[in-house]
This record gives sequence, structure tokens and C-alpha cells, in this order.
Amino acid sequence: MKAVASGLVFALIFATSTLAQSSRVDPKKPLVIAKQGSFFVGGEKKALPAPPVPPSGGRGGFGGGDVTVNQMYVQYQIPPNGNRHVPVVMVHGCCLSSKTWETTPDGRMGWDEYFVRRDRPVYLADQVSRARSGFDASVISEVKAGTQPPSALPNMIFASQQIAWTVFRFGPSFGKTFPDGQFPIEAVDELYKQMIPDLNALLPNPNPTWKNMAALAVQLKGAILMGHSESGFFPQQAALLDPTGIRGMISIEMPCPDLSAEQIGTLAKIPTLVMFGDHLGDVQGGPANWAQSLETCNTYVKKVKDAGGDAVMMYLPQMGIKGNSHMLMQDRNSLKLADLILDWIDAHVEKGKR
Amino acid sequence: MKAVASGLVFALIFATSTLAQSSRVDPKKPLVIAKQGSFFVGGEKKALPAPPVPPSGGRGGFGGGDVTVNQMYVQYQIPPNGNRHVPVVMVHGCCLSSKTWETTPDGRMGWDEYFVRRDRPVYLADQVSRARSGFDASVISEVKAGTQPPSALPNMIFASQQIAWTVFRFGPSFGKTFPDGQFPIEAVDELYKQMIPDLNALLPNPNPTWKNMAALAVQLKGAILMGHSESGFFPQQAALLDPTGIRGMISIEMPCPDLSAEQIGTLAKIPTLVMFGDHLGDVQGGPANWAQSLETCNTYVKKVKDAGGDAVMMYLPQMGIKGNSHMLMQDRNSLKLADLILDWIDAHVEKGKR
Repeated sequence: MKAVASGLVFALIFATSTLAQSSRVDPKKPLVIAKQGSFFVGGEKKALPAPPVPPSGGRGGFGGGDVTVNQMYVQYQIPPNGNRHVPVVMVHGCCLSSKTWETTPDGRMGWDEYFVRRDRPVYLADQVSRARSGFDASVISEVKAGTQPPSALPNMIFASQQIAWTVFRFGPSFGKTFPDGQFPIEAVDELYKQMIPDLNALLPNPNPTWKNMAALAVQLKGAILMGHSESGFFPQQAALLDPTGIRGMISIEMPCPDLSAEQIGTLAKIPTLVMFGDHLGDVQGGPANWAQSLETCNTYVKKVKDAGGDAVMMYLPQMGIKGNSHMLMQDRNSLKLADLILDWIDAHVEKGKR
Repeated sequence: MKAVASGLVFALIFATSTLAQSSRVDPKKPLVIAKQGSFFVGGEKKALPAPPVPPSGGRGGFGGGDVTVNQMYVQYQIPPNGNRHVPVVMVHGCCLSSKTWETTPDGRMGWDEYFVRRDRPVYLADQVSRARSGFDASVISEVKAGTQPPSALPNMIFASQQIAWTVFRFGPSFGKTFPDGQFPIEAVDELYKQMIPDLNALLPNPNPTWKNMAALAVQLKGAILMGHSESGFFPQQAALLDPTGIRGMISIEMPCPDLSAEQIGTLAKIPTLVMFGDHLGDVQGGPANWAQSLETCNTYVKKVKDAGGDAVMMYLPQMGIKGNSHMLMQDRNSLKLADLILDWIDAHVEKGKR
């Protein structure tokens, strides 16, 4: 019954969204912020190897003692009507930072500001081991000092422009585009600048970002967690550690793992949205298999529904929305997709509120 | 004559600022933003070593091809009256990110927002090789792959809590505070979370951040550059590469290098403010010698003045402002110091404007 009702609501939302040709805010109007700032979630003290590392050269005398690791940097903006809505936490994917959600490569408003203009408190988190969250650099110092072998260095992901082109589905092969591609390919160089080394291979298991996301949701007295690609399933990973604060989970383009009935039972208590773009099977080679990812997530959504949960799969081309890349929050129709998500939040997470 | 006039203006400003017990904005009033966003300055294409790096394991298949390096991430907010003032670019110091300028460790408004509330367009730049600017990870991959020796790894600065305590002058030795210390020491753990590995040893010479800062000033059709500690002299380094867009230079707590008469001549054309906090000589040991840094900067300021330039040294304890740490933008009296800087901008950079 619940699934049927959700389906109806969803159909209605979809009809509304596709009719709207323009987004629902005027980007030229000043943005009003009730409160903004940044803080950290989590973090532990770690003793650095002594004697001082590295042993020679430059300012290497900085070494030994304690550092803080596994903290997660969070930047937020709360609009004046923010207390009427559930906050949204956005977590970026592989080889990227929170820049993902900000100004698009071609200079349009990002989801961060759009959600704020749509009255949502927005929290952008840099994954632990990335960007302003920093990373645990001990092993690099130790290898330099000779106390660990080079093989101890992490398997960094330093994704090339060639890899990004196909993994992010800008076209069938590097330099070629899809005729209906939504990514602003003329500004692809600006995307390349966002791509930074991914040191997640340094992280302990479970990934501290999951615990920090769960803790942030508790701290906010309820939050919707959104992940993308590498972090697409992080909302669920966070919920499996502590579902207390998590009011909704939005997962954009990632493989869905096979979970136990017990795990599905936990996740089925939280409204879930999964979104996939277009051309999933139209790219030659590369390390990602998006068509298979969609399949695994269709299975996941079905399992959640079978367990009585509220899960929606928005496979965009099936909804008549064509040409979306993997970086769909930066695509030309990004605000239209944001509207789909906001309507889903209103109907599935905040239902009855408005 | 010019130096005398500046001195008079300065004395006047100082009298006004110290009389004001509270800051000049109401932090509870909503913040109004005309435009905000983020972008990159600079960046070059670099070919990654082939064959794929690393050769084995995990998702290491990402390798080869081109990446972008040396780009500088910039996040900005422009207030509605922003076009009446010269934009301010803030660049953080060693082992830190732009978080430096945001919410203080004890949760007060940072200089970023305060300057915006005082009608200044504010641009926060993550240094090249830090935080959201990313870094060139090639050498780490190469050492792991065995094509470079461990000694090729950078001399990272991963500053410990013990080092920070004394270098940032929270007290005479780790765990001890100065009775009049302005740093919110009860929240020092939040500062430790801001401290992230510094990979500047990876950078080419000249540091691409300098060029990017100069380019940003040109792009903004004039800007005031502000640096702190490691980046304290970056405004000058930027001006020595291209002074075109630089309307003012604010240098907070760093050693001042010995420059040629020609270099001083270039810098003397741009109004300069240097600021130092308290207890410069009151810390035991450690890699920094702040008393000596002050001396070198007194010499620098004198040289600029002798060359006909407008340079002001604000050595805070000499002005009756006691107990400031190295992280003075986070100290309890941070907004009072911000007022000193803003008044200096009005009098020395924007003179005649108001």
C-alpha cells in the first residue's frame, strides 16, 4: 500500500517538475543567510612516529608529537526559513571535494546555493582524507624516513582527464561527446581542476566518514544524507552504523552492495531515493560499469520495498530526461534535477509538513 | 611627508578602534549576499607517468593520461554594496586551509563573514597543493611503483599539537598558557582539526600560488591581498611577479626577506600593512623565531618608507593590544583586529572614497 501511494505521489511530482521549464528561484535576487560557518565532526588524536619525521631537510623538524586524524570538515548555510525543513548533507565522490556542489564548471549556481534558496539548511562535507578535512600523512613520512617500505604507500586515485571523460560519461570515448549530452563540455577544463588526489586508501575500516555523517545527522537533530559516486552509498553505510539522526538517504550513481535481510531491515525504515543519469552502457571500456551499477541498485530498491520501505529509483532516461552525465549536479539541467530531489524530500521525508 | 601623514591617519584610526568595545556589525542580523560561489585560478596540464601508476592493486587502474596541477581554489562572497569597496583575498598559512578565516575554534564569526558584513567582497584561496586546490601526487605514485626512490618524497609538514602550541604562541610551553592570552584555548582541539598536511615542498619555484594570487587580483580588476604566516609575504611575492591588480598588501606574522632596492621600489608603490601579535619572544624553543621575524619586518617597513612607500607596522602590544597569539584571526579580540585592518584599508587603500 505504502509503495503504491509513494508511486502516485512520485508520478504527480514528476509531472509538475517536467512542466516547469525554469527553476523555482531567481538567482539575481540577493541570497539571505540566517547563519553560516564551518566546523569539524569527529577526529581522534594520533601519536606521530618518533624520532622526528622526516629526519632531515627543510622544515622537517616539524614531527613527532600528536596530530588529529579522521576529522570531517563541514561548511554550512542556513536560510531564514531553514528551521521549517530537514537539513541536507551533501558528500562528494572520488577524486573530488565539496566543490562538486558549488558553482558549476560553466559558472551556474550549484546545488548548494539552490537548496539554500529553496529554504534548506545545507551542509557540505569534505570526505575524511580529502581537501579541508586533511589526511593522515604518517605513512608518507615513514616511507621517506625508511621505516616503512614504498609498498606501504597508499593506492592513491589520481584520476586523469581521459579516465574522467568516460567514467563521467561525457561521451563514448575521450574527446567525443554524446549528441544529447547535458554536461557543459565547453567548460570541462574547469571540472578537471576540481579533480584532486583521492587518499581514501589510507583510511581505516569502517571509513570514518560514515561515522561522521551519522554523528552529524544526530548533531543536527535529523538530516537527509546525500552521496554521489564513491560516496553514493555512504548514507546507507552511515545508517548501518547509527540510523538515529538520518531522516532520508539520497544516493546518486554508485554500485549498490548486496546486503543482509537485517541490514535491509534497518535501511527500510528511512526513505530512500536513488538517481541515475543516461548513457549508462554507452561508454567504451574504463573502470566503471554504470549499467551494472543501475542493476545492483534496482535490486537494492526492490529489496527495501519488499521489506516495507519507501525507496524510489529515479532512472532519468526512463522518466524522459535524457543525456545526463555522471556529474549530473553540474549538468545543464542540474536545477531541474534538484527540483526532482526537493519534491521527493517534500513528499517522502517531510510529508504532511506542507 | 607621506609617512608623517600616514602616521597621523593611523593614530586617529587606532584611537577610534580601541574605543569601540564591540564590533561594528550585529551578527544576529541575516547576512545578505549579492553573489557567491567558487572557481579556480591557474592550473596546467601535466602528463602522468605511464604505464598506469600504481601498477597493481585496488582501483590503481586509474593512472596514465593527463591531470591538472597548480590550480588554486577560490571561494567568494560579494555583499550588496561590495562594488563600493576593493575586494579582499585571504590566503592561509602552513598546515592550514581557508578554514583559518571561517568560524573560529570556539564558534565565533570568522574574518571571512565579518569582512563581508562590512561590505567587502571576500575571496578565500586554498593554497596550491593544499585542501580543495589538490596537489600533484605523481611522485607518491612513482615511489610506490619503484620508479623513484623514497628520498624523492616531499618533506611534508605535518605539524603536531605540541609544535602548534608554541609556534602559535598559546603559551610558553606545551600545556601552559599566557595569563593574558587571547586565543580561545578551551577550544584548541578544534584548531588541531584544522591542521592538515602541508605539501608545499612538492611545488615548483616560484610557488604557483604567487602567480595565481597576482592573476586573481587582475581578474578582480584590483584586490587587496592578505597572507598569514607561511603566506604572510605571498602578497609581496605576487606583486614582484605582477603588481598590476594589487591595490594593497596585508602581511600577518612572518619573516620578511631581504630584498633588492629594485624589488623594494616595486613594492613601495602598493600600500602595505604588517601586523604582529604579542609574546613574540616568550616561547621556549621551537622552529619559529617570531621576535626575529618582527625585526626583519621592521627593516622591511622602513625600507619601503625610505623608498617613498606607504607601509604601516601594527605591532599590537606596542598599540596597547596585549596577548594576541599567532592565530590572531581566531583570537577573542579577532573582530577588533579586523576593524584595525578595515580602517587601514579605508585610510590607505581607498582613501578619498568615503
